[in-house]
Amino acid sequence: MQLTKYTDFSLRTLIFLAVQEPESRVTITQVSEHFQIPRNHLIKIVHHLGKAGFIDTVRGKGGGIRLGMPAQEINLRAVVETTEETLQPVNCAAPRCPIMGGCGLQGMLFNAQEAFMRELEKYSLADITQRSSNLPQLLNWSSENARFQA
Amino acid sequence: MQLTKYTDFSLRTLIFLAVQEPESRVTITQVSEHFQIPRNHLIKIVHHLGKAGFIDTVRGKGGGIRLGMPAQEINLRAVVETTEETLQPVNCAAPRCPIMGGCGLQGMLFNAQEAFMRELEKYSLADITQRSSNLPQLLNWSSENARFQA
Repeated sequence: MQLTKYTDFSLRTLIFLAVQEPESRVTITQVSEHFQIPRNHLIKIVHHLGKAGFIDTVRGKGGGIRLGMPAQEINLRAVVETTEETLQPVNCAAPRCPIMGGCGLQGMLFNAQEAFMRELEKYSLADITQRSSNLPQLLNWSSENARFQA
Repeated sequence: MQLTKYTDFSLRTLIFLAVQEPESRVTITQVSEHFQIPRNHLIKIVHHLGKAGFIDTVRGKGGGIRLGMPAQEINLRAVVETTEETLQPVNCAAPRCPIMGGCGLQGMLFNAQEAFMRELEKYSLADITQRSSNLPQLLNWSSENARFQA
C-alpha cells in the first residue's frame, strides 16, 4: 500500500518551497532538477497544488512558484486528500465483488483509512521542516549535484 | 492510496472460504468464477496464502482449498502484511530523494501507516463474516450468475 507518486512528488515540492527564503520564488525546472521529477509531470502537480491554494504561481520573467499560504497552515491530511485520486483502500467495483452490498470488510477498511488520515492531520508542512535535519544542506547538495551532472 | 489488487483478491478468497461448510473444499475455479479473478492470478495468491498457513490445499481429485486455520485466528493485519509488497507509504528511493537522510516526513508517514495497521489488527476474518449481511445469498447469487453466463 503506497501513496501515489503524484502525492509523493507533491509533498517533495511543498517541502522544497517551505525551506526557501520568505517571498522568494523558484522555478519548476529547479524543483524538477532537485528531485529528478519529470518536468511535464511537475507542471501538472504545480497547477493542481496552485488551484488548491497551496502554491502561488507567477508566470513570465521574474516569475516562479512559492507557498500559497504559511507552511504551518498547510495540513498534511488536506494535501493528501487533494492529491490522491481515491481514498478507498480497495475498489470493490473492479472487478465487481458480488458481496459488495453486504460486506463487513468495507467498514473495517474505512476505519483503517480514517486512522491513517487522522494521524496525518496532526501535522503541517512546518512540522516537517522543523523535524528534518540538515534540510538546506541536503537540498544544496542536490543542487550542486544536479549542476555537476548537467 | 489503495491496497494492491493482490491483497484485495486475497481477502475476497478468504471471505469465500470462511462461509463454506466446515471441512468442505472448493476449487480455485469456483473462487475465480465467483469473484471474476483471473485463474492464473488466483493460483499465485492461493499458493502464497497456503505458504502463510491461511489456506490449506489438497491437490488432485477430490482436492481443493479451505481455510488453513479457524477464521477467528486469521487476523487482518497479518493477512495484509503477508500480501502487500511494501508497507512503506512512499518510496523515497525512486527517484532517490535528496533529503531522504534527514526528512521529517518519513516518521509521520510511518505513524500514519502504523495507525492503519493497528486498526486492521482489531479484526479477524470471522469478524468480517459476522458483520456481513446476506453473505451466503450474495455468493449464491454470484454462483448462479456465473453458471448462467457460462
